[in-house]
Amino acid sequence: MVDIQKRLTFASHAELIQIAETTGTPVFIHDENSYREYAQQALNAPNAFGLKVRYAMKANSHKAVLKIFDSMGLHIDASSYYEVKRAMAAGISADKISLTSQEPLNAEQLKELAGMGVLYNATSLLQLKRYGECFTGSNRPLSVRINPGLGSGHNNRTNTGGPAASFGIWHQYLDKVLALAREYSLKITHVHTHVGSGSDWKIWQKAARLTLDVVREMPDVTVVNMGGGYRIDRNNPENSMDFGTVFPVVSDAFRSFADETGRKLQMEIEPGTYLAANSCILVSRICDMVDTGKDGYNFLKLDSSMTELLRPMIYGARHPIILLGKGEQAQKDYVVAGTCCESGDIFTPSEGDPERVSTVKLPEAQTGDYVAITGAGAYGITMSAKNYNSRPICAEAMIRSDGSHVLITRRQKPEEIWANEIEVEI
Amino acid sequence: MVDIQKRLTFASHAELIQIAETTGTPVFIHDENSYREYAQQALNAPNAFGLKVRYAMKANSHKAVLKIFDSMGLHIDASSYYEVKRAMAAGISADKISLTSQEPLNAEQLKELAGMGVLYNATSLLQLKRYGECFTGSNRPLSVRINPGLGSGHNNRTNTGGPAASFGIWHQYLDKVLALAREYSLKITHVHTHVGSGSDWKIWQKAARLTLDVVREMPDVTVVNMGGGYRIDRNNPENSMDFGTVFPVVSDAFRSFADETGRKLQMEIEPGTYLAANSCILVSRICDMVDTGKDGYNFLKLDSSMTELLRPMIYGARHPIILLGKGEQAQKDYVVAGTCCESGDIFTPSEGDPERVSTVKLPEAQTGDYVAITGAGAYGITMSAKNYNSRPICAEAMIRSDGSHVLITRRQKPEEIWANEIEVEI
Repeated sequence: MVDIQKRLTFASHAELIQIAETTGTPVFIHDENSYREYAQQALNAPNAFGLKVRYAMKANSHKAVLKIFDSMGLHIDASSYYEVKRAMAAGISADKISLTSQEPLNAEQLKELAGMGVLYNATSLLQLKRYGECFTGSNRPLSVRINPGLGSGHNNRTNTGGPAASFGIWHQYLDKVLALAREYSLKITHVHTHVGSGSDWKIWQKAARLTLDVVREMPDVTVVNMGGGYRIDRNNPENSMDFGTVFPVVSDAFRSFADETGRKLQMEIEPGTYLAANSCILVSRICDMVDTGKDGYNFLKLDSSMTELLRPMIYGARHPIILLGKGEQAQKDYVVAGTCCESGDIFTPSEGDPERVSTVKLPEAQTGDYVAITGAGAYGITMSAKNYNSRPICAEAMIRSDGSHVLITRRQKPEEIWANEIEVEI
Repeated sequence: MVDIQKRLTFASHAELIQIAETTGTPVFIHDENSYREYAQQALNAPNAFGLKVRYAMKANSHKAVLKIFDSMGLHIDASSYYEVKRAMAAGISADKISLTSQEPLNAEQLKELAGMGVLYNATSLLQLKRYGECFTGSNRPLSVRINPGLGSGHNNRTNTGGPAASFGIWHQYLDKVLALAREYSLKITHVHTHVGSGSDWKIWQKAARLTLDVVREMPDVTVVNMGGGYRIDRNNPENSMDFGTVFPVVSDAFRSFADETGRKLQMEIEPGTYLAANSCILVSRICDMVDTGKDGYNFLKLDSSMTELLRPMIYGARHPIILLGKGEQAQKDYVVAGTCCESGDIFTPSEGDPERVSTVKLPEAQTGDYVAITGAGAYGITMSAKNYNSRPICAEAMIRSDGSHVLITRRQKPEEIWANEIEVEI
């Protein structure tokens, strides 16, 4: 068993403590080099006829993160109208952004974004129809998202394909897609599928073959977007999906398709977690320790909470927890808890079962110690239950490639939390 | 079986649609009269020697809601330093606020709040010690929270008593509490217990007796705070806990205690959900409808999401869902989904099991229809996964007692979401 006390890769304990002392806690500490290394792995993924990597920005939408990926030539996968606006506010050019929104855009929004060059990925028949009404006869690139009829996620709540998922157009409705394309003289150039997060790569490979079956019926398609969900192991990064092993099978399928049809399809992928998860950690301090007697538990209470990281609470996700600067000998079982007034606010749930409390073995801890929760770069601050218990949104810092430390998010002021409330005489 | 299409009590469908047309969707619509009626029920609860009702503001911290309760004479239960600041920003005077924080305050914060008259409820031995260091020899009122050794919640994640809960000082450590009180010459005047949310009232009654056993050992205590968690049924409000039935048993225990000891204890309670849940609904529009074939599901996609209401995702909570203005005949099974790029973003999970998708029977729906999710007043907007997918925080409106409609929260502007990010040259 790997000692998770050792799983911190991008900074020394002393360096993290030094940053946290400067910014205060809780603080997300990002590592520029890690983002760059994971992005390079994705860019190097084997492919048949060209690969475009889009960063799924919903994982972590901080402008500094977006700009790092942009500087390396990655494109952007946005999942809402607002994410497109946010990416553009970070300086990303519209023609590098595709939008896969569960919420249909209205005509005005469609014209605004597509007019600037954002690639629209219609995820429902209504979305395709609205696009057609706005851009009848247009030759601009257009994508449709297909639900290939099967899905895979690391748990049921991250499964985005199959009959119980509402994402994309059900594969049996391809005739309706083609009818709409004819009705509005649209050229569908991209097909998109995404089967889930943390998915089994064998299912992903199968989804690729099913997707190619769809593409066979769509002669204008030149690009296949295979979505994201490439599994990264937060506890043991070396057990993560290896692009070099998994992608050649899909590349072979693209080559066979080319042999059969003469069509050399480009591939796009949309990693989010893979690029971001292990590039950022959450540093907190132990603000209190309580126990519930000799047959009970020992609790470490952190000054971070579900307001910073929601994954343990909604998925039963176990992030590696490291007691900084206290040696590596695990000695005692602790429940690590947040400090929201919410009993589910626990960083050590039973793996995959957020209903049950479990423990982690750590060196002997004391109030005031710094704790790192690793793997917090994806779906951390960007998906948290911000402002519960009126807690201000925390600070963020980044370790730059040159080793310098910069603050990248100012801690929210309490009064900013309720600034949009309107005064009413009661 | 009660037809949940009928469970909307405080406004007509037409009135809700009218408000939503004005504010846009999603919008939380609050009802002043409902808040007042539920608060009056709590104020009328049977008691032996006096009752103070504190609103647990973590349930919904909007200043308009706080001011309504304040105008009726309720006091405030704050769960963080920031909630105290928020209540005071709403005009609540400090001496009406008690603070039960999981995170210990530092000396400066303690002096600031207690100096203004906030009642401090020490929830750990460290908190009590810090208070003692700041206020040695003080006669001001002081509370301690005890974990009575048993708990009850409507699910494991809302259980806040017993050995697996970190809330309060374990009951076996009463000697340590008394030793600290002696060491710092403190007078502990209040004892607080809270066993869970949506709790079984028989367990709550048992906790009351256990709490009185603790109080027996603490001669300075004059007030017993029995916490909150009073169950309200969102589907069938008439099945909610009835103060008139449940409280007399506890009143009897207080009277017996008085007969035995001569001490007439005052009672405090801290309802949150009970006062707020059914006083506010979330109104959304159906922005899309998709299905996954004849053996699959029919999905209604709302323009609200886990960014407005997280309870279905974290608890498998089923809120009543009403299709507004479409008659009452339920005809079709629908999965009602949010529009975040997250497969768990479902408003119809299996009851108590957020891993599984379920359905609700509704009249035949169409894109553009308005949908009310009721029971959304507690742990709705105040606990949601705000800003996931960079979605702006929604608007809120209130139906005033005089029937007028007022906007009480301005919809967030997208650029406000990333306003605290600091520009970094990449």
